[in-house]
Amino acid sequence: MKLEDTIRTIPDFPKPGILFRDVTTLFKDPKAFHQLIAEMADGLKDKHVDVVVGPEARGFIMGSALAFALGAGFVPARKPGKLPCETVSYEYALEYGTDRLEIHTDAIKPGQKAVVVDDLLATGGTALAAIKLIEQMGGEVVAVRFAVELRSELDGIKALEGYDVSASIVY
Amino acid sequence: MKLEDTIRTIPDFPKPGILFRDVTTLFKDPKAFHQLIAEMADGLKDKHVDVVVGPEARGFIMGSALAFALGAGFVPARKPGKLPCETVSYEYALEYGTDRLEIHTDAIKPGQKAVVVDDLLATGGTALAAIKLIEQMGGEVVAVRFAVELRSELDGIKALEGYDVSASIVY
Repeated sequence: MKLEDTIRTIPDFPKPGILFRDVTTLFKDPKAFHQLIAEMADGLKDKHVDVVVGPEARGFIMGSALAFALGAGFVPARKPGKLPCETVSYEYALEYGTDRLEIHTDAIKPGQKAVVVDDLLATGGTALAAIKLIEQMGGEVVAVRFAVELRSELDGIKALEGYDVSASIVY
Repeated sequence: MKLEDTIRTIPDFPKPGILFRDVTTLFKDPKAFHQLIAEMADGLKDKHVDVVVGPEARGFIMGSALAFALGAGFVPARKPGKLPCETVSYEYALEYGTDRLEIHTDAIKPGQKAVVVDDLLATGGTALAAIKLIEQMGGEVVAVRFAVELRSELDGIKALEGYDVSASIVY
């Protein structure tokens, strides 16, 4: 099936001029969701992935299913103050202001192979923050995967240059 | 393997007297995470589940992997204002104040069989809110599943009376 047929496009959300790509309509469709994750896992089967890292919150949806499909562990990259133990954190720029991601300091061991996964590649800022955290802990980022890439509007892939990056659906 | 051996217990978090059960140490362990989800899916295989509903944010981690394992769709129950289309919402009581969960109005079709899943059963308030939303849309809640139940401290299972409720690890 064509996965893009299950994506809902919402004009002028969250503000005028933006075409919002809603992936919840893909996730709720059993066949589309299974195809998305199974194909992504199949493309990673030679990478010997130890852990999948997903940024809060929609990265949890992609990441946990992908981790299960790969037989890997899942590590959440969370917004500040949500994780109960010692964390490393990385601050990154947004259009206005900054945001921060945190990972438990013991979540990734040196030498472990990690995949970063999120629903949408826009500016690439969130994924890059997750990459920096993994590398700070001595992990190796073997791939970065997205359900959707907004290639015609933004240049997120440039922010992630040097990594093995791909998306299942490209607009 | 004994899943409870992978749970980290943090005393006095988030406040004095609370023993916090940290499931991130289970999720990051490939074998434990796979066992948790595979056993949960196996116990649901005769329920003909159409969709798995997971409350934000740790319910996304449980729910998406379970949906993939079952060949079902995944529907996020989100905090207010996060979903881009028309939603139904349900307000529920917390220890202090109230909280609210939202689901897209078209996320569940009448007659669909749904499982609600979250990491932790404490008071049961969040799971009950997800149940009410599913039933409001005409869905049938065939099971409610948790990684961890805090039976000795709280009585969450009473709030969910009448439903098929179980947890993989009980404290």
